[in-house]
Amino acid sequence: MGGDFGPRVTVAAASDALKRHPQLQILLVGQSDAITPQLGRHRGKHLQRLEVIHADDVVAMDEKPSLALRSRRDSSMWKALELVAQARAQACISAGNTGALMAMSRLVLGMLPGIERPAIVAAIPTLKGYSYMLDLGANIDSSAEQLLQFAIMGSVMVEAIDSRERPQLALLNVGSEDNKGTECVREASRLIQAHGGLNFIGYLEGDDLFSGRADLVVCDGFVGNVALKSCEGLSKLLVRKVQSSFRRNLYRRFVALLATPMLRELKKQLDPGRRNGATLLGLKGVVVKSHGGANRTYFGHAIDQAFEEARLNVPARIGDQVAREMARCGNGRQMDAADRSKN
Amino acid sequence: MGGDFGPRVTVAAASDALKRHPQLQILLVGQSDAITPQLGRHRGKHLQRLEVIHADDVVAMDEKPSLALRSRRDSSMWKALELVAQARAQACISAGNTGALMAMSRLVLGMLPGIERPAIVAAIPTLKGYSYMLDLGANIDSSAEQLLQFAIMGSVMVEAIDSRERPQLALLNVGSEDNKGTECVREASRLIQAHGGLNFIGYLEGDDLFSGRADLVVCDGFVGNVALKSCEGLSKLLVRKVQSSFRRNLYRRFVALLATPMLRELKKQLDPGRRNGATLLGLKGVVVKSHGGANRTYFGHAIDQAFEEARLNVPARIGDQVAREMARCGNGRQMDAADRSKN
Repeated sequence: MGGDFGPRVTVAAASDALKRHPQLQILLVGQSDAITPQLGRHRGKHLQRLEVIHADDVVAMDEKPSLALRSRRDSSMWKALELVAQARAQACISAGNTGALMAMSRLVLGMLPGIERPAIVAAIPTLKGYSYMLDLGANIDSSAEQLLQFAIMGSVMVEAIDSRERPQLALLNVGSEDNKGTECVREASRLIQAHGGLNFIGYLEGDDLFSGRADLVVCDGFVGNVALKSCEGLSKLLVRKVQSSFRRNLYRRFVALLATPMLRELKKQLDPGRRNGATLLGLKGVVVKSHGGANRTYFGHAIDQAFEEARLNVPARIGDQVAREMARCGNGRQMDAADRSKN
Repeated sequence: MGGDFGPRVTVAAASDALKRHPQLQILLVGQSDAITPQLGRHRGKHLQRLEVIHADDVVAMDEKPSLALRSRRDSSMWKALELVAQARAQACISAGNTGALMAMSRLVLGMLPGIERPAIVAAIPTLKGYSYMLDLGANIDSSAEQLLQFAIMGSVMVEAIDSRERPQLALLNVGSEDNKGTECVREASRLIQAHGGLNFIGYLEGDDLFSGRADLVVCDGFVGNVALKSCEGLSKLLVRKVQSSFRRNLYRRFVALLATPMLRELKKQLDPGRRNGATLLGLKGVVVKSHGGANRTYFGHAIDQAFEEARLNVPARIGDQVAREMARCGNGRQMDAADRSKN
């Protein structure tokens, strides 16, 4: 029901995804009188693998998460998450209210043992292809111990999804030397190095974010959100500048015509929705958040992302890894770290 | 002496600047045997307004600021700042080690009364022209009171330099609603609103950074540094993508030839040095930091920036504003704020 376009986009993307993945089944959760007319536009045997599950209520895009948590238990979001909790579904995908999705996911699915808070991870384009970055805004203040948890969760996910063994992990910082950054980031660096199981390559500065030097970049949610959204803002500025530059006179319009394929490629590069689908890691289940402005194709990427994570059982892999970690270290380090994170 | 190119760039840019500004006088501080050969390449009466002041030592680009502070009192950086402290010069410009420049500036020039820490401010391109942003990395953890000080300093500077009356001021945050962000950012929002003299338009998200909605964007140095450097990283990625896109085959190379002026414009837009010259605000004197990789033209921008700030006496204006503020509120609020910032 969520996002800028609601069922118009999500129903069409669901139909496409069923055609792409013969093993896939989809439960469309929402107000049936909004979904049914959209479904009427699609035909084919693949729709037999689709079921509509009615939900009376909807979480508004701008609703306060705490309020949604209390008053929207009949919403499509809550019901979709319940289907995952009941193992009737293996993943939940939403283009709706991010804060509400996170709050409800924590309550309905619960956190994996040893993980304090979910983190949002997504792919970012790089010179070498793409890397992953987390947290992109699920948390505002993260302790060093939580940054370590993000590092573990992200590494497990990249290893599973991209078959990259021992992915190269970096902490986002304002310099590459040991003494740079906040006490929290430096403490996270010490914890990650002490962990031993992670392929830590050190600090990464913002200007290296898109170089592909790291497979996985870890930062707190405030910094990650601002950094990525700033890049989105720069992209918007550039698209406008290129457009006006190529329209200034007749000669330029003619060249723009000849350059159409290149300009299209550039616009695609600049499109934040291109690799759509941010994952909420740390939960006992797969939850993928689509960009609210995603179109049919891009919402399809979010479905594919969720399909892959469910197929590879990413949450269970993370759970195993964290459980091994906890068994190895005992409770001593955990409690020690919890003490530290209070400072 | 600093930056990637040393006197080769700074001497040439100094000569150019003297031609541009008939009132300007320049003291070139550094190792005379490195400067003199470069000076030999320039001719003209304007060079009569240039003087070389020898300094034995140089601060290395990667030197720890605390070490430079103790052991580099004969360096060009220290001597140049001393010339400002002695009122023999009205501004200091350096392409050298940022951390060392900040530490030395604080010690040699001192802070304005009522300002706790310097902040780095620079212009960023927007859809409407350009805006300013601070802090870009002078500080790692900033208290709410310090963010208020950044807001006051930045507003005074934008008003003076750009003749924008009551510039629109925003706080960088992860959302636009009141309840968004860290406790520190929310407290800063309350302090700025309580101040009354600032034209505060609320929170700004990263994707609005380049829209021009705010004339001045305030954030802590960690976030500002990461956000701006990430955009620098994205720019680098895009330049490479555009280049490879326009070189893929003979047709594309031909179109690239026709599109040369537009591609040049785009490259210029993406060049982080284009509006070169970041100012260290809050000091008892003008200090401008040039990008280390600045070429002759771009280092000239930093000189122009310093010239304008000295001409308009920006530090004195900030000092007056903060003194008025302190007189208005008495010491009560200041002490209260200092208490708060300890938490």
